Amino acid sequence: MKRVYDVDNISIISHASCVGREEYRGPLGELFDYHDTTDCFGKKTWEQAEGELSHMVFELAMKKGGYSPKSLSFLFGGDLQNQCVASSYAQAEDGIPYFGIYGACSTCTEGLVLSSLLLRGMEDDAVGGVVTTSHNCVAERQFRTPLEYGGQRPPTAQWTTTAGGAFLLAKKREVFPYISHVMPGRIVDSGVSDPFNMGACMAPAACDTILRFLKERDLSPLAFDAIVTGDLGREGSNLLYILLGEHGVDIRPVHQDCGVLMYDTSLSDCHAGGSGCGCSASILSCYFLPCLERREMHHILFLSTGALMSPMGVQQGGSIPGIAHAVELHSPKTT
Amino acid sequence: MKRVYDVDNISIISHASCVGREEYRGPLGELFDYHDTTDCFGKKTWEQAEGELSHMVFELAMKKGGYSPKSLSFLFGGDLQNQCVASSYAQAEDGIPYFGIYGACSTCTEGLVLSSLLLRGMEDDAVGGVVTTSHNCVAERQFRTPLEYGGQRPPTAQWTTTAGGAFLLAKKREVFPYISHVMPGRIVDSGVSDPFNMGACMAPAACDTILRFLKERDLSPLAFDAIVTGDLGREGSNLLYILLGEHGVDIRPVHQDCGVLMYDTSLSDCHAGGSGCGCSASILSCYFLPCLERREMHHILFLSTGALMSPMGVQQGGSIPGIAHAVELHSPKTT
Repeated sequence: MKRVYDVDNISIISHASCVGREEYRGPLGELFDYHDTTDCFGKKTWEQAEGELSHMVFELAMKKGGYSPKSLSFLFGGDLQNQCVASSYAQAEDGIPYFGIYGACSTCTEGLVLSSLLLRGMEDDAVGGVVTTSHNCVAERQFRTPLEYGGQRPPTAQWTTTAGGAFLLAKKREVFPYISHVMPGRIVDSGVSDPFNMGACMAPAACDTILRFLKERDLSPLAFDAIVTGDLGREGSNLLYILLGEHGVDIRPVHQDCGVLMYDTSLSDCHAGGSGCGCSASILSCYFLPCLERREMHHILFLSTGALMSPMGVQQGGSIPGIAHAVELHSPKTT
Repeated sequence: MKRVYDVDNISIISHASCVGREEYRGPLGELFDYHDTTDCFGKKTWEQAEGELSHMVFELAMKKGGYSPKSLSFLFGGDLQNQCVASSYAQAEDGIPYFGIYGACSTCTEGLVLSSLLLRGMEDDAVGGVVTTSHNCVAERQFRTPLEYGGQRPPTAQWTTTAGGAFLLAKKREVFPYISHVMPGRIVDSGVSDPFNMGACMAPAACDTILRFLKERDLSPLAFDAIVTGDLGREGSNLLYILLGEHGVDIRPVHQDCGVLMYDTSLSDCHAGGSGCGCSASILSCYFLPCLERREMHHILFLSTGALMSPMGVQQGGSIPGIAHAVELHSPKTT
């Protein structure tokens, strides 16, 4: 059965990125649309800060494209907070038909896949949106320990990014980068249960999606200017190379990982790299989409990867399943 | 702009329901496909029990319809556990392309809306699925207090159901009940912040969706055999009547609420009624779809309602926004 869908060119007609302090200090720092070096985004609690980040980055994507909430047919929103509440607080004013999604760090691509599939069946002038965020201080106290505890982290641990990305999509606007094909991921549980090694939880899911995508599309890795994974980090990326190698597939010449790209390791103590719903979302917006827009790249396979980690599940001896959704991106057809 | 979508007849080709003890003791008890009076579903923890409930009810829906995981193009899954982990654990084996969704108690209808919109653009033989669950013992300790604490509950409080519902959908199979139109809800925040009054959080969202749906479809409430809300309970239902009354709309002659239908108040101490992702899902499967199948009803407006409640958000003084998605259901076209 077909698992890759031809969505007949869904264009990304506007997008935006906002980040916090450590992300701004990273190698891509100057490329993000907005940064707040306090990580507070004008709010009193970290949770509220993430809600404001979500609101801000989506407003910015609408503003950059010249759209208002009324012009949107739907919005997919998601984050890492329990009950995905950063996104729902952020969208309580705009009145856009709203779908809450949860895919951990894969949420950005889950939203892009669903938006593409929905738009395919809608009128030609329909516009859909995706917004995803994460906040380091929220995630650390929710998933691991409060920052004040000062717990030591092993080298395989990743640093949840304080970041958000937002995207507006529409059918066949040929001056914009576009999505030609999408592949929803499936849940892959390899039995890894270490909450300080998200890369190992996600690598098998990334491998599963990449292998099935390349096979069904009959493409080799070198058909792409870049195969971009969401946030496997250094640990997960190396595991992915080993897993793909067992199937005779080598993506190393074209592979980039948003978790690796995010931080300057000489400045930030980020261990194996960045993670979180905002990681791949903000880097897709600030770096890869502009590369396509400027035609410095032409063809990208973009996969956000999610570790479906529940602290309660881990405390009860459960494993951490992974998932990876994929979209195939192209540079604009016309100028 | 159009907010109601004509999905051109998406049939519900199989469905199943599973519940726990209190739900089995309720007035619909004998109608559910399966019940476990221990609420444990063979597992050692409540969280794992909910995962097994999700797995079980979805397997049952596939079995009743004669489908296997390989025949499904996608599955939407969601629950109330942090990180929606009951659903992801439940789906770690089947390998179905998976989308995690979060809409609190509105999750069932969110999945039905998204499935209908996705299937509209797919091949004629595509089959999609939705599975949603909730578990009383998981929800109480996660959202409020552990059961052992024995906290008193005010009369406006609802009882999270231990229940799950699963649905398989496909295009135009005319011997099955079908969805003709769908309307995604939007987030409505009325400033209610009482975690023991979910009905008050959700009623404004239900009112918003019902008013907009009836207006855009140009239908009166009496065009339906039933307008079914997910789980407003007695408190929320009465608030909904007041809110709709302010717009001159009276749904009382045809209104039913799954939260009110679920329990026998003389047996179960459920206060204002049932709630949870599994409440409207299990009652849609055990009661309303069979009414359509037997042609005892012909036309139903079905809305699950969600209170997007985060304990952390409430502790920080935040409100509890609501959302309500809607599907318009019909009895089969042919026998």
